[in-house]
Amino acid sequence: MGSLDSDRTMSPKLTVELLRQLRLAMKSCKYLAEPLQAYIVPSGDAHQSEYIAPCDCRREFICGFNGSAGTAIVTEQHAAMWTDGRYFLQASQQMDNNWTLMKMGLKETPSQEDWLISILPENSKVGVDPWIIAADQWKNMSKALSSAGHSLVAVQDNLIDAVWQDRPPRPSTQLMTLGLELTGMSWQDKITALRAKMRERKISWFVATALDEIAWLFNLRGSDIEYNPVFFAYTIVGMNTIRLFVDLKRLANPAARVHLQLDSPSRPELSIQAFPYESAYTELQAVCASLGPKDKVWICDKAGCALTQVIPKPHRSQIPYTPLCLAKAVKNSTEIQGMKIAHIKDAVALCELFAWLEKEIPKGTVTEISSADKAEEFRSQQKDFVGLSFPTISSVGPNGAIIHYRPLPETNRTLSLNEVYLIDSGAQYRDGTTDVTRTVHFGTPSAYEKECFTYVLKGHIAVSAAVFPNGTKGHLLDSFARAALWEAGLDYLHGTGHGVGCFLNVHEGPCGISYKTFADEPLEAGMIVSDEPGYYEDGSFGIRLENVVLVVPSKPKHNYRNRGSLTFEPLTLVPIQVKMMNLDMLTQKERDWVNHYHAQCLETVGAELKRQGRKEALEWLIRETQPIV
Amino acid sequence: MGSLDSDRTMSPKLTVELLRQLRLAMKSCKYLAEPLQAYIVPSGDAHQSEYIAPCDCRREFICGFNGSAGTAIVTEQHAAMWTDGRYFLQASQQMDNNWTLMKMGLKETPSQEDWLISILPENSKVGVDPWIIAADQWKNMSKALSSAGHSLVAVQDNLIDAVWQDRPPRPSTQLMTLGLELTGMSWQDKITALRAKMRERKISWFVATALDEIAWLFNLRGSDIEYNPVFFAYTIVGMNTIRLFVDLKRLANPAARVHLQLDSPSRPELSIQAFPYESAYTELQAVCASLGPKDKVWICDKAGCALTQVIPKPHRSQIPYTPLCLAKAVKNSTEIQGMKIAHIKDAVALCELFAWLEKEIPKGTVTEISSADKAEEFRSQQKDFVGLSFPTISSVGPNGAIIHYRPLPETNRTLSLNEVYLIDSGAQYRDGTTDVTRTVHFGTPSAYEKECFTYVLKGHIAVSAAVFPNGTKGHLLDSFARAALWEAGLDYLHGTGHGVGCFLNVHEGPCGISYKTFADEPLEAGMIVSDEPGYYEDGSFGIRLENVVLVVPSKPKHNYRNRGSLTFEPLTLVPIQVKMMNLDMLTQKERDWVNHYHAQCLETVGAELKRQGRKEALEWLIRETQPIV
Repeated sequence: MGSLDSDRTMSPKLTVELLRQLRLAMKSCKYLAEPLQAYIVPSGDAHQSEYIAPCDCRREFICGFNGSAGTAIVTEQHAAMWTDGRYFLQASQQMDNNWTLMKMGLKETPSQEDWLISILPENSKVGVDPWIIAADQWKNMSKALSSAGHSLVAVQDNLIDAVWQDRPPRPSTQLMTLGLELTGMSWQDKITALRAKMRERKISWFVATALDEIAWLFNLRGSDIEYNPVFFAYTIVGMNTIRLFVDLKRLANPAARVHLQLDSPSRPELSIQAFPYESAYTELQAVCASLGPKDKVWICDKAGCALTQVIPKPHRSQIPYTPLCLAKAVKNSTEIQGMKIAHIKDAVALCELFAWLEKEIPKGTVTEISSADKAEEFRSQQKDFVGLSFPTISSVGPNGAIIHYRPLPETNRTLSLNEVYLIDSGAQYRDGTTDVTRTVHFGTPSAYEKECFTYVLKGHIAVSAAVFPNGTKGHLLDSFARAALWEAGLDYLHGTGHGVGCFLNVHEGPCGISYKTFADEPLEAGMIVSDEPGYYEDGSFGIRLENVVLVVPSKPKHNYRNRGSLTFEPLTLVPIQVKMMNLDMLTQKERDWVNHYHAQCLETVGAELKRQGRKEALEWLIRETQPIV
Repeated sequence: MGSLDSDRTMSPKLTVELLRQLRLAMKSCKYLAEPLQAYIVPSGDAHQSEYIAPCDCRREFICGFNGSAGTAIVTEQHAAMWTDGRYFLQASQQMDNNWTLMKMGLKETPSQEDWLISILPENSKVGVDPWIIAADQWKNMSKALSSAGHSLVAVQDNLIDAVWQDRPPRPSTQLMTLGLELTGMSWQDKITALRAKMRERKISWFVATALDEIAWLFNLRGSDIEYNPVFFAYTIVGMNTIRLFVDLKRLANPAARVHLQLDSPSRPELSIQAFPYESAYTELQAVCASLGPKDKVWICDKAGCALTQVIPKPHRSQIPYTPLCLAKAVKNSTEIQGMKIAHIKDAVALCELFAWLEKEIPKGTVTEISSADKAEEFRSQQKDFVGLSFPTISSVGPNGAIIHYRPLPETNRTLSLNEVYLIDSGAQYRDGTTDVTRTVHFGTPSAYEKECFTYVLKGHIAVSAAVFPNGTKGHLLDSFARAALWEAGLDYLHGTGHGVGCFLNVHEGPCGISYKTFADEPLEAGMIVSDEPGYYEDGSFGIRLENVVLVVPSKPKHNYRNRGSLTFEPLTLVPIQVKMMNLDMLTQKERDWVNHYHAQCLETVGAELKRQGRKEALEWLIRETQPIV
């Protein structure tokens, strides 16, 4: 599934008064030594999270637009907001006429830098919250502004917060501890492995700012951000010390205290010092004040500018992916086992859903929203269910062609025997995270719908069955997913796959399968990604076929230079609707793949359905996994 | 074909005395205000040419290693030379023990910067010829050295030239003028088109330093560099002026004077001012002294540092590909017609060669070298033959596994009925440039040789027959060439294709098909690239199958978002040996492709063989293009 939005309303937010207040703040000596001529409001939070908590929705607060990507800039005279093609319509509906929508990707749209330079008076100061802007973005913006005689200024007090009367508090949900039976590796061993990497690269300190990396490192989970089982924190790991910055109230939880050995550390170098969340800055300053001449500090190049700049340049080692990000991506056998179990439970829920839909749709009472709710209900019946891993994309007919669709009361369509239904959904279980898309027809699909579905299926199989050398980067596989569509003159305008966390974020780095991503790391056995080609016919229907797949060693006939080979094993085990396939378009190899996949679904999910006594779903599964010839 | 070397000898060059002299020069006030602690000797010439003239082989002169890629650095105590895996063996054989071979790509090998920093005394000066080092390389090296307290110094007099007693003079061959019947576009129209691009991007001046761009722009050719029909020159184009920097003696040639309208320009803005080759620097200085505050000067980011730095930074607009490079890559209909004719003539020569080889090999008298010579002889019989486009790779058995092999007397192997023969060769004709590789067996290939050949063939067809959307970059097609090999656990460690010039360099940007190249420009109809997957079994045999292919529009069933589709049309028309194929491994589609391709070879090349009265070659062609079933 793609990137997601929080709930949308489509009427514009009135911002006259807010902008007036913000512009006052931009001149106020309460916050600033010198007045600002412009203020930048980025999308993210201080951890560069993809999904953010309500208290961090500052760009939405100031302009009304609540899509996942967008940057607002307010000057003395103007207010403008940049977003991409997915959101042009939504943004134009959510912003009032105090705002200019800057459509990124169109030739005539200026970049933020160019726009600022074209309208700012000479020698202007442009402010931004240094916690929220990533270090690499700061660098680019600062360079562009300086070259035109302006300057980018770090404003410590966030000026949106200053005018945001009823800003929600930062969430501080209960911490959940995960034992070895779920993680396969204690946090102590993860720290030791991290330090080994640091030693190898002659690094003395490591600063972690990404929430999923910190959750993974300490085998802790929270629910501070919807769909993402993470909690707000920073971590600084030295060779002998571990500093954890978190709302200290959370550590009153006895389970967490025991888990982190806060009261009786086994060894001094594995003793965790807990600090308030807000003190990361001053503590990092203290760490940096004591650095030896050769000491180096690791920090991700996408980390916030504030913390990054605390580290003196000669000591700063900025890296595209942290060792935690890389270690987290390669799942150990316990995590793989957990992911497998989570996917079987998830398949049970989806078999129930599809059996239920077959029965209910003819009554004309099932809508996109009620179907999504039903899917959640079935999932919630499964053991260790925690919540959804992203808002369900449940879309009928033309709504399916909107890639980032999420049903709203005003767009909600009824499922029928006449239209294609696309459902992209997933859940968080304590043992794993799921993400699956199926496209089905409950009546008789048209020849064209079947044709397109079959191209997408061919692409899905081409990736899933691909054999490739160890060390291959995912982007080299992207064209396999498109070849059949391309041959017919079709395509889809999104990537083919993303990394998937284990009871963590449904989108994670550093690997993926996309024509766009060139900074991806090579695929390795144990990594988990999605395989989700699609086809979208505007105004008519959408098709996507998504499995989560595990990278596994493959043993082809030869072994060139002893490099070894890899392939994928599907973790998702939900039948692919045969009714949607044009079997004549499939090669024998592809038919064999479908039959083998369906046999796996039947065997593995069938056994679980039987165990759970879910007869109707089992009957549905048996019917849907009949071999094709 | 890959990158190439000039003639090799394999005994080490004795460099004690040369190094002593160079180190003296590094301290001499004749060349320097302050002594240097290190001097860098890059591979290239002042035009960043891939192939260089003998007078520019400075790195070879100082260390003995004459491969196409390598950088030498000499300090007061050390001398080291960095090259890549293709050349480890050759470099170790050609350099004496005054030199340390730095094997790039190995973990333990330091980068040039790191090595310098690790051995230089504090506050050192590192010299380099600013004409030869590319601007982007200067920037990186300078930054790294400064951060360690050293500095990179531009040394105007080349210190290798200072110690090179018998350095050959810079070539100044006769200029050849090309008329509209070969170029399809006058140089005046090319200048006008260039100025339109400049106007569009608000650029006032353009500096051309790449030799093939200048040759293309003026519809002139030379033979200053072997295999490359170019001549040493620079060009500065303004909105009303054209400056050409070239050895002025060459312009005494009446044909060139008329062609360039030197004596009677049609319009003042199309009047060419000729300057000596050496005065590009001072003239560019004069141009830059007169720049208005908003004037911008275009220069390629890979151009030499000396000229680049003449342009004041606020006026400098550095681009990865110049408008000439982009325009040159898209061939017009006259150029395409010329390339087609050149490839038919080239095919005639190769049919003759293979017919001759079949007859001669059983006698045991044909060697790699004599076969290459025979190929050249047959090519030279064709109309408008100018020379080879690169040194022929003619390799038998295990020599075929050396990707950049070129037969030498001491490696020369005899062609036989028992070993695979790989020949990668091409020529320059006045109407076009060719580059073709065929792998054949004159006896009975082994099952394994056939298996590998067939994987390579499947990859070749997968690229050649691929349909893809307009705007697709070539690197997205690279995996198609490898899929069949990967499935069997095999691979090849080079790219799949490069751009090919039209009676110009056999390697040209900005497009290509490679897993490595991410800076390539999208493929467009009219571009010409090679399609050359391979497989190399060390110590045993090499397989490569290369056609030059033209990007052409394709009309698949659908047309998503009106983007249009592209595919390839083979220009190379030389049969692919059916004897080497395992037909059982081919799909029906692949067999159809082979039959269709062979039918084209027979029809087009057959007609020309008949016209030229080459009976034996025609018989061979008819036999080799029999349809497979």
